[in-house]
Amino acid sequence: MAHINLQNDYPGIRGLMAFSPQTAKPLNELAEVLLRDDNNTLGRGERELIATYVSSLNDCFFCQNVHGGLAQHYFQCDTNFIDAVKKDIFSSAVSHKMKLLLSIAASVQQGGKNVTPQQIENAKANGATDKEIHDTVLLAAAFCMFNRYVDGLGTWAPEDKNYYIERAKQRAEEGYAGYDASK
Amino acid sequence: MAHINLQNDYPGIRGLMAFSPQTAKPLNELAEVLLRDDNNTLGRGERELIATYVSSLNDCFFCQNVHGGLAQHYFQCDTNFIDAVKKDIFSSAVSHKMKLLLSIAASVQQGGKNVTPQQIENAKANGATDKEIHDTVLLAAAFCMFNRYVDGLGTWAPEDKNYYIERAKQRAEEGYAGYDASK
Repeated sequence: MAHINLQNDYPGIRGLMAFSPQTAKPLNELAEVLLRDDNNTLGRGERELIATYVSSLNDCFFCQNVHGGLAQHYFQCDTNFIDAVKKDIFSSAVSHKMKLLLSIAASVQQGGKNVTPQQIENAKANGATDKEIHDTVLLAAAFCMFNRYVDGLGTWAPEDKNYYIERAKQRAEEGYAGYDASK
Repeated sequence: MAHINLQNDYPGIRGLMAFSPQTAKPLNELAEVLLRDDNNTLGRGERELIATYVSSLNDCFFCQNVHGGLAQHYFQCDTNFIDAVKKDIFSSAVSHKMKLLLSIAASVQQGGKNVTPQQIENAKANGATDKEIHDTVLLAAAFCMFNRYVDGLGTWAPEDKNYYIERAKQRAEEGYAGYDASK
């Protein structure tokens, strides 16, 4: 049970967004731009994977499964692919550029000052653009917020991982903007 | 110098917001609701103080001085009051309820799961409402994002603390929504 009376029983961030629609609006707009906007050279699957990886580092069960389900949906892969990234980005099957961006995301999760000029140089030398680096840092930072919001208020989360995988298609179709927490 | 070419020389988050206006919009809307909305039993000074304290814990020089300047402006206090909160909330001059909310914010800064039921109970027993606890957690979480965004991209910050104190009045008048990074 959540730390406060949310007056609803939706899991994870859905319960918080139904409790506080005024903050839910900019939060969903931020998620929409970062994770779904088409004017981006990172694919939706790649961006959901960064969100999943950071949520995994923050040990946020709800977020890592929601976004892991979405990454799996976009990549049309199985759960093993996502689990391998969480376990060790460098031995996983993602592109070399993505490994370097995920490593920047991991540094951001530890704290902004942990990102090193060497990490940035490596990413640029392997094709990462300024916008891709910007978006990776902001995505990682944003999930340090979302994860803390979800766990800091003690929300509940369905334990069955298939719940998240089954819902991913609907979420991918509907997007985050105009999100209805009751659905 | 920032890790990427921002094509401007504004300091801190201003440079990032000018580089990426599409993400700046929801970020500023979130700051406006959390820090300034009038439908809130926490004062603007109290909310800026939570932002300052979390930014201090995250060692983000730019954010702790921008928001410290604003807290100082709203409280009409001197810098010693803000510094005392950063040093030790429990011996500082803020209300007992604020001490308990700041302690929740400190736990969120460490990670969402660090918030204990005991902290929540104490805050409620000392008059904190569900909305105040919700807003404290989301504020602390949001500044874990803003701080990582500012430092993760290696932005620069004016070293003179008076710069921030002098700008606070203008920022307080203009607010965050519709923020123009060039001003």
